[in-house]
Order: sequence, then C-alpha cells, then structure tokens
Amino acid sequence: MQTILIYSGGIDSTTLLYHLLFEGHVVKTLSVDYGQRHLGEINCAKDIAESLGVEHQVADMKGISHLLGKSSLTSPDLAVPDGHYKEELMKQTVVPNRNMIMLSVAVGWAVSHKFDTVSYAAHHGDHAIYPDCREEFAQALDKSIQLADWHHVSLHRPFVGMTKADIVTLGIKLNVPYEKTWSCYKGRKYHCGSCGTCIERREAFYLSKVRDPTIYEPSAQSINEIIDKSGELVK
Amino acid sequence: MQTILIYSGGIDSTTLLYHLLFEGHVVKTLSVDYGQRHLGEINCAKDIAESLGVEHQVADMKGISHLLGKSSLTSPDLAVPDGHYKEELMKQTVVPNRNMIMLSVAVGWAVSHKFDTVSYAAHHGDHAIYPDCREEFAQALDKSIQLADWHHVSLHRPFVGMTKADIVTLGIKLNVPYEKTWSCYKGRKYHCGSCGTCIERREAFYLSKVRDPTIYEPSAQSINEIIDKSGELVK
Repeated sequence: MQTILIYSGGIDSTTLLYHLLFEGHVVKTLSVDYGQRHLGEINCAKDIAESLGVEHQVADMKGISHLLGKSSLTSPDLAVPDGHYKEELMKQTVVPNRNMIMLSVAVGWAVSHKFDTVSYAAHHGDHAIYPDCREEFAQALDKSIQLADWHHVSLHRPFVGMTKADIVTLGIKLNVPYEKTWSCYKGRKYHCGSCGTCIERREAFYLSKVRDPTIYEPSAQSINEIIDKSGELVK
Repeated sequence: MQTILIYSGGIDSTTLLYHLLFEGHVVKTLSVDYGQRHLGEINCAKDIAESLGVEHQVADMKGISHLLGKSSLTSPDLAVPDGHYKEELMKQTVVPNRNMIMLSVAVGWAVSHKFDTVSYAAHHGDHAIYPDCREEFAQALDKSIQLADWHHVSLHRPFVGMTKADIVTLGIKLNVPYEKTWSCYKGRKYHCGSCGTCIERREAFYLSKVRDPTIYEPSAQSINEIIDKSGELVK
C-alpha cells in the first residue's frame, strides 16, 4: 500500500505512522496548518517523521481560516475550554468541516503521486460533538473520494474500532516515542493537562496501564481528580 | 435559500450568480486561489460581486499548490495547451481533486454562517477529462456533505442539465454583463481565444446566437476556423 497519512503529531496519528511502517507500507505524511493555536504539534510531527526518514509536508490553509467562523482552536480571543469532551463548552473547539477539508487535500496529493490510500487515525473514542467523526460520514466521503479521479484513492482507517487506550497499548509494542508527541490544544510550552485532549491523553495512558511520559504544567489537575470527575473512565 | 456560490468570475458562475439573485436567494460568493495563472478571473469575480452588493471572499489555497502536482493551470513551466477539450493534451489542465477541495471549504463557510446550500455551476458540457465533474461524484459528495455537520448543507446545481449555450441564453435574459467575465486559462491581458476554455466560450456565444462581447488577442483563430475544426459544434 502507498498511503498519505494525515499526521497531527499526536498520540493517535503517531501510533498509526509506526503501525503503517511496521506493516511495510510506503508512507508520506501531511500536517494541516489551519491557523490552530497548537502549532507545536506540527513541529512534533515534522521531527518524528524526519527521525523515521518519512516525507512530511504541511498544507498551509491559513488562507481559509477567516471563512471557518470562531473556533477556540483558531481564534485568539476565545479561550480553549478545560474539562472533559462531553461538556457543551467543548463545542467551541469544532472547526466546521475540518475533516473533509483535510482529507480532500490529502486525496489531491495522493492522486498526484498515484498513491492508493489516505490514512487517518479515526478511532472509537471520537466524539459526537464532531459530526465529521461519525462512521456514516466517513463511509459517504470514502465513496465520493473513490469517484473523484480515474486513479482510485480510498480511505484507510485501521483504528476505527479501537479506543485511545487500545492505541497506546499497540504503540508501546511498536516503541512509539510518546514523549515526543503533542496533544494540548492550548499550544503553550508544556501540555496544560486540563483541556479536553490533555484529559483524554492522560486517561489513555492510565487505562492502558502505561507510564505517562508527558510533562504537564504544575497547575494541571492530578490524575486522581480527573478520574473522580469522569464517569467515562470507569469502563 | 441562503447559499455560498463557488464563483470563478467566468460565464457559468456569473450567470448562476444572477440567476440566484433573480430568484430571491441570499448569496455569498467564494473564489478559490489555488495558485492558478489566470488570477484575473478572481478580480473579475470581485468586481462583479461588488457591483451587485454581494459579499465576495477569497479562499487562499496557494499553501497547498505544492501538493497537487504539475497542472498547466498552476505550473509556470508548463504551457496551457491550445485546442478543444477533447484532445488528450488538455489533461494537463486537471488539478487533482480540485472540486472536492473547493466544495469542502465552501461547506465550512456555509456551516459557520448556518447557510443551507453550496451552489456551483456544474453543467452538461463539463468534461470527462475532469472526473470530479461527473454526476455520480457530485451525488456521492452531496451525501457526505449532508452528514458533515449537525447543520445540514447540501449542494445546489441548477445548471446541471444545461449546455454552456443554454447558460448564455439564460444570462442574456438576466442582463449578465459578459464583457466583465473572464474565462481564459492563460491569464494575459486579453482572452487568448485559442485555449480550451476560450474555444468553449466562443462556441457558447455562437451557438446561442448572441454577439460575443469578449476582446480576444489578434492572433486568435477566427470563429470560422474553430467551427470547422470542431465536430462537436454541429449539434
């Protein structure tokens, strides 16, 4: 398989990169800069791809961010909310149609290299507040992608049945250097430990019984506080 | 209806703009700058939209053009081929997955304004060399667009059964100022009169029995030469 991987530099897509290489596939990686404040993730993605000898490109989409309304991921005047994803406030982190935009660009790149798939790390834990993470959306988009060019490209989503904890469990076997990955939406020097993605990151290490190598800000909640607050953790 | 119109400033989308306004819809217009050499069309789009009091925005996608391979529409070192679209050479004008990329950005803008449709001027004359102009592609993409957000957006393609000559015939009734529109892929001061889109533009005026108000370069073929060469013209 020759595949373009949508690569954020976070836990899920970094594990998928290692997984695809372990399976012997040819991989090019694509990060999308849509004006998000957590640009550190793109540098993480670049560093990890380079360390593996894998091509990494950035799709600079800042020229469309003025069209996508106010998301706390892109607007300096909206704070990234703290807390678990199930909270209403997290809807502020939705960038409209982000997945279709990213995937359509990746498909264009795949077509130009005659690659056969676009891979991304959609997984079981993806959230209902992001409608473009739903299975029925992915299936419909996959069908249109296969029709978009005479050279067929399809979507590859091998993690779709896995939780984030399952992904970490797999990644540990593949020697994924999680200390080099980035999740936090706030884009400061260290992970804040309190925003939606940080909480999920911490839960994933906790549930997979793996030491979390991340450096969090001193003000971050303790893992025990997060567990107490999160009904979802007790699975 | 509240609609985002993909607006190139050419004959088809300008006629669609006038048609949508005539029908009483609320319209915002979006031009996409993907590094094409015929940037003049974006200025035409801007001028016409402003003259109608319609909002016009540009999605600056030059930051992805390095991913989309060599198309003569974007690469300075590839000449735009002359001649009718049916010729093999015209495949050089394909920008991979261009329609999905443009439409996905327009959908993002539509969602952020709670608009209900994205309109574009797909028509009967669109060509088999552009796979993403096919009906089955549009239908599959429409389905995925409707699933992309809790706020439903769908595609609106009212010209899909019309030829370019039908579109010009409609536009004349709507007083579309065709002299202000731009088609030529070469992006010089005047329309070259010889590239694929220029030939189609000239055919459309000829077939709809309307005076062509376009200024072509002196070296352009005469309309009689174009008609003699084009079997498709005799319909």
